[in-house]
Amino acid sequence: MTTPRAAPPRVELLSIGSELLLGETVDTNAAYLGSELAAIGLPLAGVRMLPDERATIRDAVDEAMARCGLVIATGGLGPTHDDLTREGIADALGEPLTEDPGLVAVLEERFRGLGRMPEANRRQAMRVPSAQPLENPIGSAPGWWVERDGCVVVLLPGVPSEMRLMWEERARPRLESRLGAPPLAIRTVKAFGIGESAMAERLAAIIEAPPEGVIAGIYARDDGVHVRFSTSGETSLLDGPVTESLRILAADAYGTDEASLAGVALATLGRLRVDTLASWESGTEGALLSILAGAEHSPPATRYVGGILDEGGASGPPMADAVLQVSLLSQDAHGRSRVRVAVAGAVSLPQAEVRIHGSGPQRLRRAAFAALDVVRRLSPSDQ
Amino acid sequence: MTTPRAAPPRVELLSIGSELLLGETVDTNAAYLGSELAAIGLPLAGVRMLPDERATIRDAVDEAMARCGLVIATGGLGPTHDDLTREGIADALGEPLTEDPGLVAVLEERFRGLGRMPEANRRQAMRVPSAQPLENPIGSAPGWWVERDGCVVVLLPGVPSEMRLMWEERARPRLESRLGAPPLAIRTVKAFGIGESAMAERLAAIIEAPPEGVIAGIYARDDGVHVRFSTSGETSLLDGPVTESLRILAADAYGTDEASLAGVALATLGRLRVDTLASWESGTEGALLSILAGAEHSPPATRYVGGILDEGGASGPPMADAVLQVSLLSQDAHGRSRVRVAVAGAVSLPQAEVRIHGSGPQRLRRAAFAALDVVRRLSPSDQ
Repeated sequence: MTTPRAAPPRVELLSIGSELLLGETVDTNAAYLGSELAAIGLPLAGVRMLPDERATIRDAVDEAMARCGLVIATGGLGPTHDDLTREGIADALGEPLTEDPGLVAVLEERFRGLGRMPEANRRQAMRVPSAQPLENPIGSAPGWWVERDGCVVVLLPGVPSEMRLMWEERARPRLESRLGAPPLAIRTVKAFGIGESAMAERLAAIIEAPPEGVIAGIYARDDGVHVRFSTSGETSLLDGPVTESLRILAADAYGTDEASLAGVALATLGRLRVDTLASWESGTEGALLSILAGAEHSPPATRYVGGILDEGGASGPPMADAVLQVSLLSQDAHGRSRVRVAVAGAVSLPQAEVRIHGSGPQRLRRAAFAALDVVRRLSPSDQ
Repeated sequence: MTTPRAAPPRVELLSIGSELLLGETVDTNAAYLGSELAAIGLPLAGVRMLPDERATIRDAVDEAMARCGLVIATGGLGPTHDDLTREGIADALGEPLTEDPGLVAVLEERFRGLGRMPEANRRQAMRVPSAQPLENPIGSAPGWWVERDGCVVVLLPGVPSEMRLMWEERARPRLESRLGAPPLAIRTVKAFGIGESAMAERLAAIIEAPPEGVIAGIYARDDGVHVRFSTSGETSLLDGPVTESLRILAADAYGTDEASLAGVALATLGRLRVDTLASWESGTEGALLSILAGAEHSPPATRYVGGILDEGGASGPPMADAVLQVSLLSQDAHGRSRVRVAVAGAVSLPQAEVRIHGSGPQRLRRAAFAALDVVRRLSPSDQ
């Protein structure tokens, strides 16, 4: 079934913005594009974060074009004087930047009804001759698509909502038809309640000698430990290791791939005929509430209706069929903390205590996930 | 007052882990270290994300050491077969990896009381002769401190809680005394309700000709538009541009530096003698609840007690002095959405409507921030 194909091009991402290097912004674009590129068979070989410096951008684009079939750059396309990506790429290509009257017209149209266009925005209509503009339907910075010297360079804005929309509507379809390869197939098995090395031991036979063409890896996460299998061959190569991992991990495994601990916990409650869940948390600064608010809740899963912070406040939790209560207790010298979990209402679990480790924001999230792990293990006997 | 100093060393970060390139993990370590390094006068010049490949890690360390005074690497120190950072760095240094009996003893102590130590963890006791171990009080992966060829290489685990603790307790103090330079001083002015280019126009005089030694930049964010001033000179150089920006932006500015829109909104309510606030949101998937849960609430600021999702549910919001209600309405073709905001209770605002733009998760967060912007502009006449 496998058709021979040309090797996929080497793909590099340049994330441009001094605020990334100063730590004022977390680069979520890299993870988004990494996942998207893997899905179209063009996995990222490397990422570089660069400051808003014209010469640094020029040198990085030069180096990347020498190594790469595909260079994607995000950021530095704004209207202000410190947005220098257009200039840096023009220098690397050795091409002049000139104002594109078509792009000026698009910008003016965009500002119609919002007062006149600020003069600064004219910079966003500049491009080099070999750049084709990529339309930005929700922002003022158009992207670029450049083909030169056997290399494709795609330039996208750094604002995540604009970048994602332009990626989906403009860049990805074109890359798929131009360079797309069989996608890298990825399957993940997720477990909670065991450590990374304990999982490595239990799964040693699979991890150390996976099927040919399959790569295996184990990762510690706030929501447990994940084992990931990937292949650029047939997806079905992953079925064996996934099934075998689930069998060995048994009740410690809570799901695969997109499954989330919160989603699985809400599904468990749904099977126990609990329609709505509220939360009541202490010491976790709203970590449980944030995680539950973001969880999918397609029926028959229980619907999360909201919650309150801090035990003993003036207010009780919102009305719901069941209430999940979590208290994060103090931490010992080894970084371990105890978490008290209770469930009341249609499902009842008087009190469980679990241990977690970690510090800072991770500790708060792990306490919340430990509570959700208790919930997802509930059974009809807890009713 | 300024003492002449040697130029600070060039600093590069290597974030190691195939899961970063596949987009399965967002690299929050880079932002944390970027901010920390700037604070000790060692701002990051570049970041590279690398896969767990021994030869790729070796080459990247080689290149970084050729350019740098300081190389920091995070990740790939776990116990499993795909954790290859130790091996890659040993190759770059041309030194052998051998088991350190002292580190084995520390690991065995760590596993005492948790059952025997898994065999896989012995890999974490390997080091090269020129590496001094950096103790990891809450995890099994020790770090390394290496000085070679005029370059310092610091190796830290990728698990954020372990990395942060080891950075704070082991690496940062040592770097400060060994290489520390005057910190890069940074001040930020934050505004909501105006666009990036409109801000650039209003602040043109300051942005285009800041005081000597001061760098200015404007950034669009979910919580508004930020103007950032930085200097490696005296912090007081930033006072003028900050004060002037606040004056020009007037009511559109909501704070500086660590100020958050949620914190400012809760402080406004506190001044209006509202003790507790609950939320009720529709269409935002809990974005408001997540942001409010994470906000500081030191008295006299109002305390956020929790909230509910989805309008018209069976349940009302938790009891509180005031309730903030947000509904995110549908989006038009230009990516603009309307947001309805109302406040009821001790403070009352029957209904306001604001426009936001953006799509995806950003759209949800911007709706929540737009609501908080309405709240922070409340005045005694709304009581």
